[in-house]
Amino acid sequence: MNPINIRAAIVGSTGYGGVELIRLLQSHPYVTVTSVISSSNAGSPIAQGFPHLTEIRTDLLDGVDVELIKSKAEVVFLATPHGISMKLAPEFLAAGLKVIDLSGDYRLKSGDTYREWYKHEPAPQADVERAIYGLAEIYGKHVSGADFISNPGCYSTATLLGLYPAVQAGWIKPDSIIIDAKSAVSGAGRGLNLSSHYSEINENFKAYKLNKHQHTPEIEQVLSEAAGFPVITTFTTHLVPMTRGIMCTMYATLTDKRTTADFVELYQQFYEGRRFVRVRPSGIWPATKEVWGTNYCDIGFSVDERTGRITFISVIDNLVKGAAGQAIQNLNLAMDWDETLGLQFTPVYP
Amino acid sequence: MNPINIRAAIVGSTGYGGVELIRLLQSHPYVTVTSVISSSNAGSPIAQGFPHLTEIRTDLLDGVDVELIKSKAEVVFLATPHGISMKLAPEFLAAGLKVIDLSGDYRLKSGDTYREWYKHEPAPQADVERAIYGLAEIYGKHVSGADFISNPGCYSTATLLGLYPAVQAGWIKPDSIIIDAKSAVSGAGRGLNLSSHYSEINENFKAYKLNKHQHTPEIEQVLSEAAGFPVITTFTTHLVPMTRGIMCTMYATLTDKRTTADFVELYQQFYEGRRFVRVRPSGIWPATKEVWGTNYCDIGFSVDERTGRITFISVIDNLVKGAAGQAIQNLNLAMDWDETLGLQFTPVYP
Amino acid sequence: MNPINIRAAIVGSTGYGGVELIRLLQSHPYVTVTSVISSSNAGSPIAQGFPHLTEIRTDLLDGVDVELIKSKAEVVFLATPHGISMKLAPEFLAAGLKVIDLSGDYRLKSGDTYREWYKHEPAPQADVERAIYGLAEIYGKHVSGADFISNPGCYSTATLLGLYPAVQAGWIKPDSIIIDAKSAVSGAGRGLNLSSHYSEINENFKAYKLNKHQHTPEIEQVLSEAAGFPVITTFTTHLVPMTRGIMCTMYATLTDKRTTADFVELYQQFYEGRRFVRVRPSGIWPATKEVWGTNYCDIGFSVDERTGRITFISVIDNLVKGAAGQAIQNLNLAMDWDETLGLQFTPVYP
Amino acid sequence: MNPINIRAAIVGSTGYGGVELIRLLQSHPYVTVTSVISSSNAGSPIAQGFPHLTEIRTDLLDGVDVELIKSKAEVVFLATPHGISMKLAPEFLAAGLKVIDLSGDYRLKSGDTYREWYKHEPAPQADVERAIYGLAEIYGKHVSGADFISNPGCYSTATLLGLYPAVQAGWIKPDSIIIDAKSAVSGAGRGLNLSSHYSEINENFKAYKLNKHQHTPEIEQVLSEAAGFPVITTFTTHLVPMTRGIMCTMYATLTDKRTTADFVELYQQFYEGRRFVRVRPSGIWPATKEVWGTNYCDIGFSVDERTGRITFISVIDNLVKGAAGQAIQNLNLAMDWDETLGLQFTPVYP
Repeated sequence: MNPINIRAAIVGSTGYGGVELIRLLQSHPYVTVTSVISSSNAGSPIAQGFPHLTEIRTDLLDGVDVELIKSKAEVVFLATPHGISMKLAPEFLAAGLKVIDLSGDYRLKSGDTYREWYKHEPAPQADVERAIYGLAEIYGKHVSGADFISNPGCYSTATLLGLYPAVQAGWIKPDSIIIDAKSAVSGAGRGLNLSSHYSEINENFKAYKLNKHQHTPEIEQVLSEAAGFPVITTFTTHLVPMTRGIMCTMYATLTDKRTTADFVELYQQFYEGRRFVRVRPSGIWPATKEVWGTNYCDIGFSVDERTGRITFISVIDNLVKGAAGQAIQNLNLAMDWDETLGLQFTPVYP
Repeated sequence: MNPINIRAAIVGSTGYGGVELIRLLQSHPYVTVTSVISSSNAGSPIAQGFPHLTEIRTDLLDGVDVELIKSKAEVVFLATPHGISMKLAPEFLAAGLKVIDLSGDYRLKSGDTYREWYKHEPAPQADVERAIYGLAEIYGKHVSGADFISNPGCYSTATLLGLYPAVQAGWIKPDSIIIDAKSAVSGAGRGLNLSSHYSEINENFKAYKLNKHQHTPEIEQVLSEAAGFPVITTFTTHLVPMTRGIMCTMYATLTDKRTTADFVELYQQFYEGRRFVRVRPSGIWPATKEVWGTNYCDIGFSVDERTGRITFISVIDNLVKGAAGQAIQNLNLAMDWDETLGLQFTPVYP
Repeated sequence: MNPINIRAAIVGSTGYGGVELIRLLQSHPYVTVTSVISSSNAGSPIAQGFPHLTEIRTDLLDGVDVELIKSKAEVVFLATPHGISMKLAPEFLAAGLKVIDLSGDYRLKSGDTYREWYKHEPAPQADVERAIYGLAEIYGKHVSGADFISNPGCYSTATLLGLYPAVQAGWIKPDSIIIDAKSAVSGAGRGLNLSSHYSEINENFKAYKLNKHQHTPEIEQVLSEAAGFPVITTFTTHLVPMTRGIMCTMYATLTDKRTTADFVELYQQFYEGRRFVRVRPSGIWPATKEVWGTNYCDIGFSVDERTGRITFISVIDNLVKGAAGQAIQNLNLAMDWDETLGLQFTPVYP
Repeated sequence: MNPINIRAAIVGSTGYGGVELIRLLQSHPYVTVTSVISSSNAGSPIAQGFPHLTEIRTDLLDGVDVELIKSKAEVVFLATPHGISMKLAPEFLAAGLKVIDLSGDYRLKSGDTYREWYKHEPAPQADVERAIYGLAEIYGKHVSGADFISNPGCYSTATLLGLYPAVQAGWIKPDSIIIDAKSAVSGAGRGLNLSSHYSEINENFKAYKLNKHQHTPEIEQVLSEAAGFPVITTFTTHLVPMTRGIMCTMYATLTDKRTTADFVELYQQFYEGRRFVRVRPSGIWPATKEVWGTNYCDIGFSVDERTGRITFISVIDNLVKGAAGQAIQNLNLAMDWDETLGLQFTPVYP
């Protein structure tokens, strides 16, 4: 494998996550997308379904032919739904490719938990244990050199980057955590559904999957590790009438009297040197547009002396830091490259 | 006063609340808007600033001439900012008009609390005590016959209709309440501001005034009354890229083991006969568009056995139930009319 | 038939046109919706699919049983796709019901033209000739007493109300007419389609069906009648990222030197006494939001001396004046009622 | 001047055009932004007003000090309003800086025409004649080596790239041209105005400045040159409820019988080798989102045999190809660099 000339394949390239991988990898200096695999538009040029990609001349392959892909790529991104990834990943790993899976199939260490929340049989436990959970700013050093990376969920990324340092430091009570999450509609994917139908969503705000969202156990798994004991949380998801962006507003009770400035300092130290987390000063909270189109996660705080609680605000672009961007960041970390390669965008404003 | 032919004046009629009063009162069988008073567009026809109101032939008056208004109206709606209402209300009351104030000037019983949250000197305490707080479904019987009504805040209405029955019943712990509120942009009014500038708001989601919103003490005042002891809460506000609608997602710890169905039943009983509160069945939560353009407040629930918490979802149209609609409902209650007069709209969908 | 207590059935009630008929008819003093017929949600309460209609207790019937419907209604609205209406209308007419068809099946007098533009076999010519084309402000007197009304297309309504008086007066050259039409997304219906998928439409503006839209021959048929000779036009359609509203921007060459004020006067006279057409004064043009939720068609003009051309701007709410509202207006005209019954709404602003 | 290490200053950096220059120049390999000059936020870090630019450490200067800027930059971008640019440009030119002006001050060769359409006194004629009109794909070779470039208007760019080849080829009648233009709201700038107020624009579509838009004479100036004789046109502008994007739908009468495919071929040849113009195949028309965030101009065609007319569709991102992007492209051309430097973005989708 030539360390500065890697060929990548993308499976599931006609969903929003797959198309975003194509966009971002166009600007990666060391990676070339050589093949994209899609069951729905196979055989036609990518630009037919995605006219904004007129310049892209990559092969569009029909069906997953591991031998063929092996001849064209050293790394494969699985932008496939859960249940599908668990069928493909072992084949690619066996063929010697590096695999970065964007689905939920390898995020949960417990098969029982997976079965309960995903309503689907889990992947074999040995495969699950082999996968490195790629929450880049927290588990980056485990990712270094890894062959098989499970990319975190979009909500989980925003939540965990926002809460991990405070939980690990013991500054908040883990059992008091309440996460009120809001997502743009692209998070629901490109598949047709009345709940993504324009006239149903525009000028509308709705809650969904209360106390049932499958990112809940993923969040709890990591927070439990940070706390050192089992943590359960309340996690609620909403749909915002916009295309990109997630905000998580998170509430917790303080363990001791601390100020907003204390939290700012704790987080600045925790994330020192990590380019993609930006901590806002006291009294300023990030909006989703401030990270739009980029791999940033911006975080702000508000301690309330009256109630003894703190509110955390974290924002990401769900398709970048919440999916394709963090997947590329994980490839960079796995290859021991600068983690920002291919991801050096300034947010699009306005 | 002819009980079925009331003339109304609207002060501050070029803000969104004032214009919405004009729209709604067009369909009220017993009320005629005879004059609208606005400093900014005085002298010109309403339709010049608001072409959608081409048919409206009401006088547009310049400045508040109490004697003149007295000759043209029996009731006056104050759609004026806080600080202004407290100057106007006493004059109109002294002149014998019925006053319905949409500002925050008369909502808080404590002057100190008003001063702290509004950063403004409070109205005279005697005036404050005279004003009836018009949260219609809770305090409707106090409103009957009233001359001076303080219309609740938009966020407060959605929050309190969602929480009051549970707090009063003792089914949730008041000190555990966390309110995560989301509002459409019309709530910020028609005054120009970068935070209501289209390109700053579209495709953006932001939090604002964390732990500082002036509706917090209003909510706490009513919840304290429901609980029978002082309650403080965490209340957070966000801006959604849409024009109308508020959703409050509210979290609390259960005092005892109860199900979602228990809450559905409690609320159905509490609001029995009240046309404008609609309780959703178990497993269904309302979206803001489902009340769009109307005076409804729709409420749903989700009890989580894992955490012992309940999540409440309540939605309103911020300009109707959150402002002009409830003001008219309060007039109806004050006059002992059917509370739905002038408010019998079906939500506009899609 | 009791002239002030009419029972109505709606077929195809789970599309946006059908649901809008339900909304509007709630406020009609003489009409009661007794049954709504839908293949997709039959058997369930309307509120299950449409929670905003929680109050509506109408039967939801499965399949079209003409005998049953005959026992429950005197008038039937067909909010069905073209091709379906032509099967149902004859049966209902034969059963003695008044039929108002919202599809394109009976709008074109020439079967060949229908076949060419709709790519479908036309309805029997005798049925076509029986149907009265209900462009209310132009053909209202033909509608009086009619049993079978073909409701105009949404684009056709905005275009024809904007152009008819000028063409009839001979003030513009019919062969110079170019119509640049823009529609909100609800015009594409509630059926799932990538071109109505939220993330594809939001923050996007697109043109579609250039020189192929099926409303073209409908527009030409009426303009030819106004001109007294065959007229062909250029008609282009675009999709605007919003839910409701159509604007037609229309260009034509003047036959003689005339001013904007001349056109304002011509149109004010032409539409005198017609409540639903509002002519803007010189220098002012309507925006779509100014008719939102109502049956208005607002029209403005700009004559350009430099080029000898005039620009017309007409706006409607595509689901009201462009569909359900005009259908009710046609029922009113057919019954010789006031044409505004059930349609007396003030536009929702903002 | 080191040809591959140029320092740039931006004047007027707190409008959307100025901020977009900052975003795009971050990825330019040969240009460094060393100073940004703004009267409104001087002294504070850029990130205070624009939190998405947290990383940018450029000086924010107060007021235009030509000597100071001369010591920090070799090129200056004027993202200032018309009327201001004409004061600044001569000073910077005299100081030996390369000037790229984004305002309308130097686009029109005739001072009388400027006075008529801009309602302002024109710049001195000698300055106007010195300025090279930087419509990059048409006048690129004049830009090579230029010191003073007048960047085209946003609407003009979309219109002219769409019409120039056909007019020059004599395939359409210039006096038949009608341009129906639609712009996103960011084109109206960051200055507060009711017509950019969120609740007034969202879910609304409006026309403005009919037959009065100041880009009209700019379009006519270039089309006249293409035709070889004076051309006047009808040009209409509309506001679309979205942040970025312009579509021009343009109509003209064919001079001879030609097909859509003929036009596709003509344009492919005309723009051969120009990376930023993408010609769509027959039957496909571009949508604004397909160029979002990039310097592309995409063009499609539809010839209508019935009417003998052609419809052109051209789309750009108004802040990129319509402003900051083309300004950078012009710097690249002026420096004889690859015209795509700093502009190699893939459109953001969805």
